[in-house]
Amino acid sequence: MVDLNGIYYLGPEGSFSHEAASLINGKLIGEVTISSVFKRVSENKNSLGVIPIENSLEGPVNETLDNLYNYDDIYIINEIERKIELVLASKTTLTNNIKRLYSHPYAFSEARDKIEKIGFNEYIPVESTSKAALMASKDPEAAAICSIFAAKLYNLNVLLTGLNSDNNYTRFIVISKEKRIYGEKSMILFTVPHKPGALFKVLQVFYEYGINISMIYSRPLKSIPWQYYFYLEYEGDTANVEFIEKLRKVTYVLKIKGSFSKIR
Amino acid sequence: MVDLNGIYYLGPEGSFSHEAASLINGKLIGEVTISSVFKRVSENKNSLGVIPIENSLEGPVNETLDNLYNYDDIYIINEIERKIELVLASKTTLTNNIKRLYSHPYAFSEARDKIEKIGFNEYIPVESTSKAALMASKDPEAAAICSIFAAKLYNLNVLLTGLNSDNNYTRFIVISKEKRIYGEKSMILFTVPHKPGALFKVLQVFYEYGINISMIYSRPLKSIPWQYYFYLEYEGDTANVEFIEKLRKVTYVLKIKGSFSKIR
Repeated sequence: MVDLNGIYYLGPEGSFSHEAASLINGKLIGEVTISSVFKRVSENKNSLGVIPIENSLEGPVNETLDNLYNYDDIYIINEIERKIELVLASKTTLTNNIKRLYSHPYAFSEARDKIEKIGFNEYIPVESTSKAALMASKDPEAAAICSIFAAKLYNLNVLLTGLNSDNNYTRFIVISKEKRIYGEKSMILFTVPHKPGALFKVLQVFYEYGINISMIYSRPLKSIPWQYYFYLEYEGDTANVEFIEKLRKVTYVLKIKGSFSKIR
Repeated sequence: MVDLNGIYYLGPEGSFSHEAASLINGKLIGEVTISSVFKRVSENKNSLGVIPIENSLEGPVNETLDNLYNYDDIYIINEIERKIELVLASKTTLTNNIKRLYSHPYAFSEARDKIEKIGFNEYIPVESTSKAALMASKDPEAAAICSIFAAKLYNLNVLLTGLNSDNNYTRFIVISKEKRIYGEKSMILFTVPHKPGALFKVLQVFYEYGINISMIYSRPLKSIPWQYYFYLEYEGDTANVEFIEKLRKVTYVLKIKGSFSKIR
């Protein structure tokens, strides 16, 4: 294990990224934006970053994809998957004592049905579930919709669990300046020539090698309207030089973002 | 031309969707969300809807893609492309009289360099550029960063133009309950079997017919984590039955969302 200078995560304290990052041993440091996590990791050789890349309901996190494209010195070395569980938490142990509810708008809309049953149809919007927990920790007449992790961090009592929808998972990636060629999955970013069959020819290489693509997204190339770069994850590593060379022949820009395995 | 019951657009009044919708003759009606535009069009046989589908800097509009997937009775009959131009507008004609600036955060970040040069580095955030124009119309000491269209609508003077970045375009679609099989472009939505080569085999059909794919996005199928549906636009129509049948054979779900041409 390398001596880590720091594990930067998308804050604030108590965020889902913080919870994911806490699976890794090291000094955890919260950052305000995903872009600033990338900047920190790029500047600090032995550091890691933990950021969300995709949610099973909302789709990809564009700020993460765009930074992966822009930072050529940053790679993915692990992924972490977490079920997004939401609870009702408060300083008080009695639901009857609650006069105010803090929530992120998304969290409230997920929890609405269950929350309305106990008499709440209004909330004070805040920018994250961890901020909701922080606010509830300062106000004995308030409750928060937040994660169990945030409730514990702010010493709140969990009054109600399972407020989340069943299919809400987030995938986080661990980023580093180190590039790995072995792992369960790998990620590449690429652009293709602007002509018919260009993307087809890239997928053909995967088909020839019998490699399963687990995810493909396209994002606009901001420099040229209606041109795209592709973000692709596949099951396998990046150790096969012949395979990578074939990909290079059918792409215009090809960025190998490394191979990685899941932290369980 | 059919007798239109209404053209529903993503409001508020003065929005970019309003500007795009004003290219069509008919009674324009603003709606609060993209989802409510879909609902209105689905309920009103002779109506149309105008909503954004993609921005050249920000990427796809997920709410539009997901509604296209969910509403099986709604099709695309036209597209409209607009350059997103931003201006500084105010009731006053003198920059020196401006004490407050209203802006959407995205618009301010685009305009920041030019706006700071004339001495503004703070703004009051509002939810849209048209809301900014509305606020400035009620306050003679305020200015807004908004479109020329919104400035005109609210009788503001344009003090500074070209605040936008060069590559900022938005594509809007015109939706209807009518399905067209002829047009410059067509759109399909599909899911593929979960096995290697599944997407490859769909693109192979396009390759065989020499058809250019102009856009492909993937979106999570909310019902099953890490499963996706694909959103694809191509150059050509949906009149070729043999081609469509071939697509049907390699997809699991296939939704033909119609053929359409650009309103210029």
